[in-house]
Amino acid sequence: MTERAQRIAENVERFVRDVVVPYERDPRLGSHGPAEELVIELREKARAAGLMTPHILDDGTHLTQRETAIVLIKSGLSPLGPVAVNTMAPDEGNMYLLGKTGTAEQKARFLAPLVSGEARSAFFMTEPAADGGAGSDPSMLQTRCERDGNHWVINGRKAFITGAAGAKVGIVMAKAEEGASLFLVDLPNPAIVIERVLDTIDSSMPGGHSIVRIDNLRVPADQMLGEPGDGFKLAQVRLSPARLSHCMRWLGSVTRAQEIASEYACRRHAFGKPLIDHEGVGFMLAENLIDLKQSELMIDWCASVLDSGELGTVESSMTKVAVSEALMRTADRCVQVMGGTGVSGDTIVEQVFREVRAFRIYDGPTEVHKWSLAKKIKRAHAGR
Amino acid sequence: MTERAQRIAENVERFVRDVVVPYERDPRLGSHGPAEELVIELREKARAAGLMTPHILDDGTHLTQRETAIVLIKSGLSPLGPVAVNTMAPDEGNMYLLGKTGTAEQKARFLAPLVSGEARSAFFMTEPAADGGAGSDPSMLQTRCERDGNHWVINGRKAFITGAAGAKVGIVMAKAEEGASLFLVDLPNPAIVIERVLDTIDSSMPGGHSIVRIDNLRVPADQMLGEPGDGFKLAQVRLSPARLSHCMRWLGSVTRAQEIASEYACRRHAFGKPLIDHEGVGFMLAENLIDLKQSELMIDWCASVLDSGELGTVESSMTKVAVSEALMRTADRCVQVMGGTGVSGDTIVEQVFREVRAFRIYDGPTEVHKWSLAKKIKRAHAGR
Amino acid sequence: MTERAQRIAENVERFVRDVVVPYERDPRLGSHGPAEELVIELREKARAAGLMTPHILDDGTHLTQRETAIVLIKSGLSPLGPVAVNTMAPDEGNMYLLGKTGTAEQKARFLAPLVSGEARSAFFMTEPAADGGAGSDPSMLQTRCERDGNHWVINGRKAFITGAAGAKVGIVMAKAEEGASLFLVDLPNPAIVIERVLDTIDSSMPGGHSIVRIDNLRVPADQMLGEPGDGFKLAQVRLSPARLSHCMRWLGSVTRAQEIASEYACRRHAFGKPLIDHEGVGFMLAENLIDLKQSELMIDWCASVLDSGELGTVESSMTKVAVSEALMRTADRCVQVMGGTGVSGDTIVEQVFREVRAFRIYDGPTEVHKWSLAKKIKRAHAGR
Amino acid sequence: MTERAQRIAENVERFVRDVVVPYERDPRLGSHGPAEELVIELREKARAAGLMTPHILDDGTHLTQRETAIVLIKSGLSPLGPVAVNTMAPDEGNMYLLGKTGTAEQKARFLAPLVSGEARSAFFMTEPAADGGAGSDPSMLQTRCERDGNHWVINGRKAFITGAAGAKVGIVMAKAEEGASLFLVDLPNPAIVIERVLDTIDSSMPGGHSIVRIDNLRVPADQMLGEPGDGFKLAQVRLSPARLSHCMRWLGSVTRAQEIASEYACRRHAFGKPLIDHEGVGFMLAENLIDLKQSELMIDWCASVLDSGELGTVESSMTKVAVSEALMRTADRCVQVMGGTGVSGDTIVEQVFREVRAFRIYDGPTEVHKWSLAKKIKRAHAGR
Repeated sequence: MTERAQRIAENVERFVRDVVVPYERDPRLGSHGPAEELVIELREKARAAGLMTPHILDDGTHLTQRETAIVLIKSGLSPLGPVAVNTMAPDEGNMYLLGKTGTAEQKARFLAPLVSGEARSAFFMTEPAADGGAGSDPSMLQTRCERDGNHWVINGRKAFITGAAGAKVGIVMAKAEEGASLFLVDLPNPAIVIERVLDTIDSSMPGGHSIVRIDNLRVPADQMLGEPGDGFKLAQVRLSPARLSHCMRWLGSVTRAQEIASEYACRRHAFGKPLIDHEGVGFMLAENLIDLKQSELMIDWCASVLDSGELGTVESSMTKVAVSEALMRTADRCVQVMGGTGVSGDTIVEQVFREVRAFRIYDGPTEVHKWSLAKKIKRAHAGR
Repeated sequence: MTERAQRIAENVERFVRDVVVPYERDPRLGSHGPAEELVIELREKARAAGLMTPHILDDGTHLTQRETAIVLIKSGLSPLGPVAVNTMAPDEGNMYLLGKTGTAEQKARFLAPLVSGEARSAFFMTEPAADGGAGSDPSMLQTRCERDGNHWVINGRKAFITGAAGAKVGIVMAKAEEGASLFLVDLPNPAIVIERVLDTIDSSMPGGHSIVRIDNLRVPADQMLGEPGDGFKLAQVRLSPARLSHCMRWLGSVTRAQEIASEYACRRHAFGKPLIDHEGVGFMLAENLIDLKQSELMIDWCASVLDSGELGTVESSMTKVAVSEALMRTADRCVQVMGGTGVSGDTIVEQVFREVRAFRIYDGPTEVHKWSLAKKIKRAHAGR
Repeated sequence: MTERAQRIAENVERFVRDVVVPYERDPRLGSHGPAEELVIELREKARAAGLMTPHILDDGTHLTQRETAIVLIKSGLSPLGPVAVNTMAPDEGNMYLLGKTGTAEQKARFLAPLVSGEARSAFFMTEPAADGGAGSDPSMLQTRCERDGNHWVINGRKAFITGAAGAKVGIVMAKAEEGASLFLVDLPNPAIVIERVLDTIDSSMPGGHSIVRIDNLRVPADQMLGEPGDGFKLAQVRLSPARLSHCMRWLGSVTRAQEIASEYACRRHAFGKPLIDHEGVGFMLAENLIDLKQSELMIDWCASVLDSGELGTVESSMTKVAVSEALMRTADRCVQVMGGTGVSGDTIVEQVFREVRAFRIYDGPTEVHKWSLAKKIKRAHAGR
Repeated sequence: MTERAQRIAENVERFVRDVVVPYERDPRLGSHGPAEELVIELREKARAAGLMTPHILDDGTHLTQRETAIVLIKSGLSPLGPVAVNTMAPDEGNMYLLGKTGTAEQKARFLAPLVSGEARSAFFMTEPAADGGAGSDPSMLQTRCERDGNHWVINGRKAFITGAAGAKVGIVMAKAEEGASLFLVDLPNPAIVIERVLDTIDSSMPGGHSIVRIDNLRVPADQMLGEPGDGFKLAQVRLSPARLSHCMRWLGSVTRAQEIASEYACRRHAFGKPLIDHEGVGFMLAENLIDLKQSELMIDWCASVLDSGELGTVESSMTKVAVSEALMRTADRCVQVMGGTGVSGDTIVEQVFREVRAFRIYDGPTEVHKWSLAKKIKRAHAGR
């Protein structure tokens, strides 16, 4: 591992533990994520510590994925850490996509305020399942865009749009004649109506997750990312790294849960001895050690693949399934070890458990990834 | 199964589905359970329907445990059902205990308003683990009571006291020289201070779960249940039936989650066909069918044992572990089948998942029950 | 439970424990099941004890399924028990089928020697998957029968035919123009060639499992069971009871494994105390208690359904999955508790583990049953 | 990865696939492992191919652990591979131990014939649990050695001694006054009596696993490895690498099982399409992909730790648990995917399943490792 990444990671860890963790009981935390005011306060402190957007260097280049991993894992040690240092979803992925595919003008206008942490963004891709919409199946995209002179006009509905409420930058996917296309838009925008913010089991993401209606949204043609029909190709640039960065952050938060549960088990006594001396407890924490290590190794492996220039679709599917399932087991055991305290908000373990439950669905449910892995096995054998 | 129980169960089911379910999005539902006002409104409707406390007959006798099972399962079809028809914890167990062990006077004063659904109650037994308190280990009881003339004076702290906020009747366990003892008290009481209501992952129980301080609580001697030192013996009367009634209600709520998830899977399409036609989805729902049936059978078996007059400690431990773990798996699969909708509050599946997570800890974590089952195996072999 | 069944079950248990268990290290046990000579010797003892075919009464009537359950579970306490008392597969199912559907003449000739334990039988249905054959999918049946005067001529190949080697009675499924049909045949027969006996992970069934070639087998028309095209309908008569009786016998054998593992854990010391006092061991045995009880309850429930006259296809699928998976977990934990001894042939635990592994595939793999359960869920919702 | 290791690994893979695999149905394979004659024949071919003991170079130095991993994984692609190229347990570990700790004389006499593949060896450490012996708990060592002039006299019993039958070199642990000590002995030796070779669920190791009695075995003092009392310290040199090499070989064999099951699933049809197109099958194979990758990553990580010069006790415990449990799940799914064929000896999948079952116990059961990991967590927290 490079020295630069280790240094950044250490600084991020210190900042999260010392500065961010005390905010974990802040009253401005709500079920739809931290209030904007709290986000601003945290980011001021991150900026002061020189840790805003730590995985993007001053010259605009990114750390490698392997380097990013050790930084983002540390940022995740608190559910508020990624918000504070600007490594969170969907911004991290959106910045990555813009950095790779935006024009100079697009970057200046839409990317710069994201990197500086002044603005948040949202990615308008998934659509309501309840309406027969896309859900995890991109082939069912129903939002349409039509050319109108030098503009495009977009209509449709989007669902589960993370961070839409409060975002200043939007990336919208819509179907042109040429195929799916991506547009950059300023937010808020009267043509993009947040119908409601969903009540979800997780609560760490500013703005929560929204159902959104797009009514005759007019976008100048130069705000299209790439060319008409490039939508899926461009989304794929973002796909694997964004998926992997989820794994990184969540690994951080479950690592912290394990610290809390282990400390609890060593301190608390029941039935005549410290909890940790009960094999029923100690074995759960031991299993956690293994699950956490395996998660770290899968992330590092997938990051290597991405760093080598490959798309890493298969590898990031494997990693997403392995890590989200392992972290769920681990968070669940942490709750169980802590008994009543584990299901209460007295520590972040309860929140981490809820967050990780959602992780098994966000960015493609486990089953969708297994489905595509099975297809890969079939293709591999067909080739013999 | 008796006809009377089937009739009551059918009526309860119809009431819950028709009257209670529409309240599931009522704004008076909060993270610490439904507001008292909502509880009163629901109970008025239950009373009007002749379904208040349906497992206790007009003459004060109870349905058998096997009969109770089919009624309480139906009451659980909504997380609000048990609140509405007064079959919920801890009242159900407290009524059972008072009915079995109270004096005529105690019953008239403390039991009658519970059975009529006018009052709620709380059982003050568990103590804070964080203070080195009892948690799941009753031998660590630290709350003390001392005789003072014709009164007892009680001091201590209690934790995870379900329904304490808003309760009118309390049953308090404290340690006398003769051993653990139980007291009936009117609530609210200035000597019983609710320090705080915990934020917990579950949210169905009115009053939530509290940390309570007892400061020089004076109780007349005739409000002791049984004799000094009878505390554990009496608590054991309540133990198995209360544990089993948890299983019943939660089976009801997860059965409903399965209905919702199945309906979702049959209606929604992805990747070219209805979700249910994807084996990855259909198999999960099939596994749920089996887990639900096994839960039902375990409850019925344990109820038979209790109806035969045995304490059923071992059987209710086995049933509690089997049912809570099976329902957790089932609720988790329901969430997963429903994807983004599953982790949102758009249906009760998300809440049921959270409730059931707590169930694996409430009334003794899975591990404590396995520990006592292992002891039983050892004793059985020692006897050979 | 009826007194008659309890009495028979007790006698069977005593016989298996006292007489059969000592044969468990008999050198005539081989990897393709016990040698015929050993089968004969065991059956002589069963006959002497009045326990031959204990679930069929002297007048030819059968115990109910619920009664049968408690008898067959006891017969399974040794892997050799069902062979000894004639409750094993496929004979048990074949006798059931013949009893329900054979003509008086067919019964006299083919059923009587089975009930008396003088003959064994085989059911020739499944076909080789390797040839593109049926496996678990009956719609792929390829063995054909053609009418030739007063005879039928059958040609095809069959796979995994349990007990074919050494059997005296065969029931053969073949496809006529009218559909699948069943034939009774005397064995051995030069037109039914055992190509080879498979080496399988299980080893309790006399004759093992064979690959069989049928070359121009001529069968008189009166040896057809039912009418041409009745094959699947008749096979279904056998289906659920035979499936359920598998569960019964295997529950017996895993119950015995649990006895052996518990006894081992109570006797043996490691790391300073009896194994059972290590939660890591005690919890496994506790989980076994629960899995065994659930298996028993599922069997009893499914038996009730069959006794009520229903086909019980869904119920027996649920039971087969639940019981085979629970017994696999249980047998696996028994092995693990016993460490090196668990993977050695020093006790029957190692054999039981292997037998149960096969059980998850025999009579329809878990996945095929889940598939049909998912279909049932779909149909149930379509009807709404 | 180094080029030298990649080259060796490729050669080993080609040799195993082309030369060794055809022996997988050789009649000289038995339930106690391949016959000596077959071992000799395979090794002649390995020697001719220049692949005998491929992880030890001509100058006696070893590949690094990371290099060894890729070679030993390939050698494991057939259960016979490690026997053929001399990378199998216990020889691999014994060679490692002798290479690290033997005197020049000891190496010439005892190590050289092992490296050349002319001799096999056994490690006499574990003792019979049934006699109250050590099992997995080394503190219970009961075999004693006493000084007698320039010799030591050893008495005791050993259990589960892999490869003892047929071995020419033995390493025996016995307790002196100074503590556990290790001795090198020539085999066979009249004072080392093989009481019996156990029938075990696995069948790949030549000589199987024996119960051994040591009766007044006299060993010259210069055949002691290290000093009196060094036994555990020396055994620890062997411990982690030997444990890790188990993981390597077994990963190879389960990788092959996955190839066979995937090929089967792609070729065979049921219920209207190729098995692989059934999600119930495809998902299992997808889960296998992940489990295999995680196993590989854990091995590589642990190997790095060992290569850095650390003992790696914790890391090899974590790896042993993770890999053995992952490979069990994977092998089990391979069996299940293949249905009846999976539980038959028609492919090596059935054998691999049995081998891996034993792996969860050999070299310390999963539970013993979790126990020591829990202790590590406790120590880590005590230090805070």
